[in-house]
Amino acid sequence: MSLQWQGVFPALTTKFTLDDQLDLLMFEKNLRAQLEAGVDGIVLGGSLGEASVLTTEEKEILVKFAIEKCNGIPVILNIAEGSTKQALKQIEYAKDWGVQGLMLLPPMRYKSDHRETVTYFKTLAGSTDLSIMLYNNPVDYKIEITLDMFDELQECKNILAVKESTRDVINVTRMINRFGKRFKILCGVDPLAMEELCLGADGWVAGLVCAFPKETVAIYRLVKAGKLEEATKIYRWFMPLLELDIHPKLVQYIKLAEERAGLGTEIVRPPRLILAGEERKAILNIIDEGISSKPSLPDYLNL
Amino acid sequence: MSLQWQGVFPALTTKFTLDDQLDLLMFEKNLRAQLEAGVDGIVLGGSLGEASVLTTEEKEILVKFAIEKCNGIPVILNIAEGSTKQALKQIEYAKDWGVQGLMLLPPMRYKSDHRETVTYFKTLAGSTDLSIMLYNNPVDYKIEITLDMFDELQECKNILAVKESTRDVINVTRMINRFGKRFKILCGVDPLAMEELCLGADGWVAGLVCAFPKETVAIYRLVKAGKLEEATKIYRWFMPLLELDIHPKLVQYIKLAEERAGLGTEIVRPPRLILAGEERKAILNIIDEGISSKPSLPDYLNL
Amino acid sequence: MSLQWQGVFPALTTKFTLDDQLDLLMFEKNLRAQLEAGVDGIVLGGSLGEASVLTTEEKEILVKFAIEKCNGIPVILNIAEGSTKQALKQIEYAKDWGVQGLMLLPPMRYKSDHRETVTYFKTLAGSTDLSIMLYNNPVDYKIEITLDMFDELQECKNILAVKESTRDVINVTRMINRFGKRFKILCGVDPLAMEELCLGADGWVAGLVCAFPKETVAIYRLVKAGKLEEATKIYRWFMPLLELDIHPKLVQYIKLAEERAGLGTEIVRPPRLILAGEERKAILNIIDEGISSKPSLPDYLNL
Amino acid sequence: MSLQWQGVFPALTTKFTLDDQLDLLMFEKNLRAQLEAGVDGIVLGGSLGEASVLTTEEKEILVKFAIEKCNGIPVILNIAEGSTKQALKQIEYAKDWGVQGLMLLPPMRYKSDHRETVTYFKTLAGSTDLSIMLYNNPVDYKIEITLDMFDELQECKNILAVKESTRDVINVTRMINRFGKRFKILCGVDPLAMEELCLGADGWVAGLVCAFPKETVAIYRLVKAGKLEEATKIYRWFMPLLELDIHPKLVQYIKLAEERAGLGTEIVRPPRLILAGEERKAILNIIDEGISSKPSLPDYLNL
Repeated sequence: MSLQWQGVFPALTTKFTLDDQLDLLMFEKNLRAQLEAGVDGIVLGGSLGEASVLTTEEKEILVKFAIEKCNGIPVILNIAEGSTKQALKQIEYAKDWGVQGLMLLPPMRYKSDHRETVTYFKTLAGSTDLSIMLYNNPVDYKIEITLDMFDELQECKNILAVKESTRDVINVTRMINRFGKRFKILCGVDPLAMEELCLGADGWVAGLVCAFPKETVAIYRLVKAGKLEEATKIYRWFMPLLELDIHPKLVQYIKLAEERAGLGTEIVRPPRLILAGEERKAILNIIDEGISSKPSLPDYLNL
Repeated sequence: MSLQWQGVFPALTTKFTLDDQLDLLMFEKNLRAQLEAGVDGIVLGGSLGEASVLTTEEKEILVKFAIEKCNGIPVILNIAEGSTKQALKQIEYAKDWGVQGLMLLPPMRYKSDHRETVTYFKTLAGSTDLSIMLYNNPVDYKIEITLDMFDELQECKNILAVKESTRDVINVTRMINRFGKRFKILCGVDPLAMEELCLGADGWVAGLVCAFPKETVAIYRLVKAGKLEEATKIYRWFMPLLELDIHPKLVQYIKLAEERAGLGTEIVRPPRLILAGEERKAILNIIDEGISSKPSLPDYLNL
Repeated sequence: MSLQWQGVFPALTTKFTLDDQLDLLMFEKNLRAQLEAGVDGIVLGGSLGEASVLTTEEKEILVKFAIEKCNGIPVILNIAEGSTKQALKQIEYAKDWGVQGLMLLPPMRYKSDHRETVTYFKTLAGSTDLSIMLYNNPVDYKIEITLDMFDELQECKNILAVKESTRDVINVTRMINRFGKRFKILCGVDPLAMEELCLGADGWVAGLVCAFPKETVAIYRLVKAGKLEEATKIYRWFMPLLELDIHPKLVQYIKLAEERAGLGTEIVRPPRLILAGEERKAILNIIDEGISSKPSLPDYLNL
Repeated sequence: MSLQWQGVFPALTTKFTLDDQLDLLMFEKNLRAQLEAGVDGIVLGGSLGEASVLTTEEKEILVKFAIEKCNGIPVILNIAEGSTKQALKQIEYAKDWGVQGLMLLPPMRYKSDHRETVTYFKTLAGSTDLSIMLYNNPVDYKIEITLDMFDELQECKNILAVKESTRDVINVTRMINRFGKRFKILCGVDPLAMEELCLGADGWVAGLVCAFPKETVAIYRLVKAGKLEEATKIYRWFMPLLELDIHPKLVQYIKLAEERAGLGTEIVRPPRLILAGEERKAILNIIDEGISSKPSLPDYLNL
């Protein structure tokens, strides 16, 4: 299956054991659930994957393991580095490990300007023949990839998609008005996904899919099949859960949801801590209420 | 025609003559275009109506004139006052003048807290039997009418709708999840209208409608008829114009659009000034490009 | 005493009786305390004066009453209007009533741009020979009076001072570097006053002075006399109280402080409500702790 | 000389050669200028030091080289890591290399909450006997170290100071009011330094000092000697330069200033690029104007 940047791409969490090792058993269990639900690719090493606490060795293990299990469903690696040199090295590794695509964030820990951001992306894209999706998230990472930057980046033939996380839904229409079909647009903010899919987004880099794979894929497929009413019903049910995706503690929240759904554990790496007290109770409440009121899904895989 | 808080409600601009009087001739011309296009009500004295520079006498003239011309299409007056006492007086006037509904902003020039905001709205709503739409615009007016406030305001039987201008499209789903059909939801942000209508909003308090009445009503009717593809085509064309609605100078921009569309003049009241220089050129460009590339509309009035 | 825009200028609260009339007795009591403490002028009709709920008639009464009691200490009226026409009218009234100076806010309820803001101020300043202080408060009123605006406004000979409330203390040095002594700078943010006075500000348009006139004037005089250590001791004690000045409910907080200090009452006008519950308790705590630990003051009037 | 967290601590830039190696010659030249000017310690690997593009090996070289040249003037290393494990490792290295103190940022790339931030700092502080200054910069790094966090962190006996970069000068007084002398306060925002020193800050972690060491130390010493007028004169001259410290491109700006002052070069590491075009011209202008109008300094080392 070739990489189309279309459909549902779960940004998977990284599963850890109690003694802080990779938990590949649980990782595999979750992965299988994603594949069965009908996802179109998976993203590793994203914010949800706790990229900033993984070693290069661990990324290698995760990537190779995932590729082996994915049966051709594309595996994407996120590149989020502070120095251009480090980013180039990570891209080389990723290629060696066999990924089919890359997600690229702007430089970490430095608010690069227009020229620097474009140069950074051109340097990275020029170093590889892998297919690339830029990750546009000025809310969490400060740097907005503006339309004028995309304009300059059109010359990079392997930059083919954007994970649209500006939280400004108008941006979908702006991108289409300016670039037509040049860049595939994948919504990167769970609680805005249906709005953006209705207006022409091509896919969804999803978060709560980690715990609710079928419901996520169902919404995508229903909207694309023009069945808005059915999609809306699921989306409304889903909303309190989807909103967990736009909180600084999305990793902990989604891992807790995975545990309740039987698809993961709560374990995180410091500086993150497992939820506690009132906060854990409040989030559990939202999760359990969601699970106990799950809507029945239509046969979305055969629309 | 009774007031349903559903459909398209233009927030009309106030037309002035060169010697700073109300220009009722031009006002009527625009009004007729709105009615012919199929709007469901009109809003006077909103931000777009330059409320803050109108005298009470002028509001009376505008309201009475509009009611006379509207043939039963509901006329709504916006109430935006700094003191509760003044607001109560304006509501009394509005009732006397014959309006069919009110739009209420939170107090002006003071960031009232939860208790004060709820008390303000309850006091106002309790003083009248007119049907009320609250105007929820924390971006421009600082005070957000939160879901918890709406919860308390449910007891006011005549508070029936909200002009949703939080710019957070998720709020449509949140409101529906919490209150079902208790409050009608009208999108108050032009470039988010289609997204919100797709997700269940009941109407659209519109701005660019002042210059483009048919295109605005067409989008609304097409979405409600499930014709997303046709609506999207118009909406994408419309977007650069619709974005003029979310700028501090929306009044000047929209008045310029009205002039180019033959439905108004550029004249504003100080402190606002008529656009000049590069800015006027840039906005004219957007407007003229929009006018020259207008899409043909389907027979949207008979869907 | 002529108006020097130098020293301490209390922005007085407006006292109301229980039946919502002006409470001139209490107003006078407070005024006397200010004069005895050594203030250099008073400001009426500011944000603290609940300007947005006062009628023109009430402003007239307050102004004339204050002038009569002030024995030549300058009385300043704040002008905060939405339309240029209304502002011009208020300035004319103010002149008739006998004020010695004006404080001017940018237009209310409209975020005027550079050209509009400058035009507004020039129009107003050109209409009168009264001495003027601009009120630069982009935090609460959105419009920043930038250095480039001040540059253009230099031609207005009666614009002589600025109430610096940008909350950016660097602005004091920027103004002095660019305009030398052209504009007097009065700090308008209580908890930044000493920092700005140390760096060259000429005065302090103060808030907590309403309840603590002597302590406020003492800090000003001590800093100007180079007695930083003594000033710092009072300022540190004062800080938890001074911070009440930068909260949306500063009016209620300061009125509560006035009451505890025997210089006012808690009564406010709707939409403002008297504090209640936990919030009132917390603020009372701060106030009472301040009152019970008042530092003894040096003979600051004879430095 | 033992580490007192008092006085001027330059946050040094890292000098690179044209072929992207450490430029130790230039580094030494700058270091000597700092020592001669009378600084009280130096900070390596801060934001200004381009920490995010340095390897561990390079940090080791820099630290050891600096210690050798510093003759006992304390050398501080900044620790800014994404994972607790990495941070612990870096601290161990720093100790081995011989630093006399640490500057600690909250976790990178994750907005940890109260509990996680405190746990992170306690874990780090508990792992070492090195003296620690926390770096409180919510503007650039999102996480504010609140007063309540400092309260819990009092139990860590080696957390002795804070680099105060909240840009809220009131925080100096708040910290002193709550903790007395428990934490030394060093201003971390160049254009707020004099304000905070006047109000009781103990030192200044400085940026423009890299290019203007004498002027920086002079201001510090003059303020501490009560010579406000002399200090103000220098500070006002210095302000346009000091403001370069609060821009995302502070590294490039300050390196350009160093070059013009004969104390460094413009060379940076990607993703940073050397300034170009209009921006470079504008910054050069500020720098050259500053250099050509340098005030003469009093004998500040012998006050």
